[in-house]
Amino acid sequence: MKKLDTAVTGYLNDFYPFFDKFVDELLKNGNAELREIFRYHLGLDDPAEKRGKHIRSLLTLICCDGTGANWHNSLPAAAAIELIHNFSLIHDDIEDDGDLRRGKATVWKKWGVPKALNAGDAMFVSAFLALSELRGKVDDVIALDASLLLNKTCFELTSGQQMDIGFENRERISEEEYLEMIAGKTAALIACSTQMGALIGGHTEEDQVTFADFGRSLGVAFQIYDDWLGVWGDPDSTGKTATGDIIERKKSLPVLLGLEKSERFSERYSENEVTPQMAETLAAWLREDGVEAEVKQRYAKWSTKALTTIDELHCSGPCKETLTGLTNKLLIRTK
Amino acid sequence: MKKLDTAVTGYLNDFYPFFDKFVDELLKNGNAELREIFRYHLGLDDPAEKRGKHIRSLLTLICCDGTGANWHNSLPAAAAIELIHNFSLIHDDIEDDGDLRRGKATVWKKWGVPKALNAGDAMFVSAFLALSELRGKVDDVIALDASLLLNKTCFELTSGQQMDIGFENRERISEEEYLEMIAGKTAALIACSTQMGALIGGHTEEDQVTFADFGRSLGVAFQIYDDWLGVWGDPDSTGKTATGDIIERKKSLPVLLGLEKSERFSERYSENEVTPQMAETLAAWLREDGVEAEVKQRYAKWSTKALTTIDELHCSGPCKETLTGLTNKLLIRTK
Repeated sequence: MKKLDTAVTGYLNDFYPFFDKFVDELLKNGNAELREIFRYHLGLDDPAEKRGKHIRSLLTLICCDGTGANWHNSLPAAAAIELIHNFSLIHDDIEDDGDLRRGKATVWKKWGVPKALNAGDAMFVSAFLALSELRGKVDDVIALDASLLLNKTCFELTSGQQMDIGFENRERISEEEYLEMIAGKTAALIACSTQMGALIGGHTEEDQVTFADFGRSLGVAFQIYDDWLGVWGDPDSTGKTATGDIIERKKSLPVLLGLEKSERFSERYSENEVTPQMAETLAAWLREDGVEAEVKQRYAKWSTKALTTIDELHCSGPCKETLTGLTNKLLIRTK
Repeated sequence: MKKLDTAVTGYLNDFYPFFDKFVDELLKNGNAELREIFRYHLGLDDPAEKRGKHIRSLLTLICCDGTGANWHNSLPAAAAIELIHNFSLIHDDIEDDGDLRRGKATVWKKWGVPKALNAGDAMFVSAFLALSELRGKVDDVIALDASLLLNKTCFELTSGQQMDIGFENRERISEEEYLEMIAGKTAALIACSTQMGALIGGHTEEDQVTFADFGRSLGVAFQIYDDWLGVWGDPDSTGKTATGDIIERKKSLPVLLGLEKSERFSERYSENEVTPQMAETLAAWLREDGVEAEVKQRYAKWSTKALTTIDELHCSGPCKETLTGLTNKLLIRTK
């Protein structure tokens, strides 16, 4: 674990200055309010431990490093992916009516919907401005490929999000539909992160596909674990309300499997609003009726797939070790 | 005028099939709802006369043609600019609480804010997917330059929009601030349209600057004219309520000059809500107190600047003629 922490710190020590400088220079002569919103949402003035985990950016840097190329060349792409992730959070919070993000008021809650929406757009395009800094560092063909990869990924992201919004008004969602939704909403950007590192490192398309496969499995496992935490997680370590996803009626995997497989859950959940007390009973029923075991089984399948795909990656031993460490840390995270 | 119409039809006859096919292929196997929203908002199923004027796309095609290059190579860029313009309308309508657009219910009004917001994001990234089709048609360096130009423009767009949203809660706006706002919100994308044509046509950076200057002046004149229409326009031909901008308290040029230069306007306007009847009186006061003349003077300055810049463009005679015809048509448009 200490070895992993040292490796991660090594990457972040160069990532932060690059990222912060990019944002700073982009906005120093620009709109003062956009600058304020960017700094607030990205946590640039917060202590390092509150700035998020930067998993996606780290994956890009680690994968690029593993190819044997100079991983510093992938800093613009890592910054771009971080900005895409953050723009999507600003817009998601408007779409989901979310009040809190990383323990702070969300952007729309603080500045109102119109300004938050527009600042999200500005952050979206900032990602592509960050990516354009690849020019001169890598071949033009790679720079164009990187831009296309990020564009296609963002389109998948919005397609997944559109599905997710639509789920809210539907009673039953099949597991297949759920998987299609999280493939876009969560896994696509993580797959892009790993593939991007390989692409910038000069790997062939065939090799890049394995990197994307690893990222995709990791992303799916990550989301299923997040869904598990939303029902049975320990609020002290997750920072979320236990059973919160049941109360908020999120169409997460435990809920949709519960509707299909537990009659008493399905009946009670469909009746009317769920109180926090009732949510605890429902969570217990899901456990007793074997739904939690099913969620864990799906989770085990995807996390195993992620870990075994690491073996197939065309990259150095230390890279595989770091990716394995990070995957394990991510999938048994406590918050 | 007939010559202009023939030229415009010539470009649009090739633009429509390219644009419609791009949107169709992008979404045919994708999210059905996104496809529906795209087709609705872009008016793909509406008769041609209801599909908007496509001014920005036309400018790109005309300017590229004027360089002597094959203007068909600029179709992906023209499509991208059209998509950027349209994404910004979807988001603007959410931000401004707008109910109607081109005589139809706005996307958020029809599908709700979450879906409209996300569909706008999807359209935003579609623009960059369209632009990526430049590859293979033009040099990689030009493709990368085009991408950077569009990115920088979108950033200006969001900066202008952020200013505009902020104006709503301020009493006084200086003319300088107003010009900075419309430079981003309106003129930047029109400047991008003209520069893009020159860039794809292979013009030098220096030549591109003149094209951008023309587009920028045209954009500023266009916005000032729009502001004039919002107070004194004929509702039968504009499709808007006369004096509508006064009633809606938009910080348009007539209003901000009125607040500065007409004491009776300023006093009455600041007092309380403006009824339609009062708005007519206020519009008359602005005219009597010389504010309309000032607006017209600004308008004359920028439209003259646009027209004289056409002379300086490094492009063919027929191109200059078409641009002059289009500028005149645009700036004395009736709707």
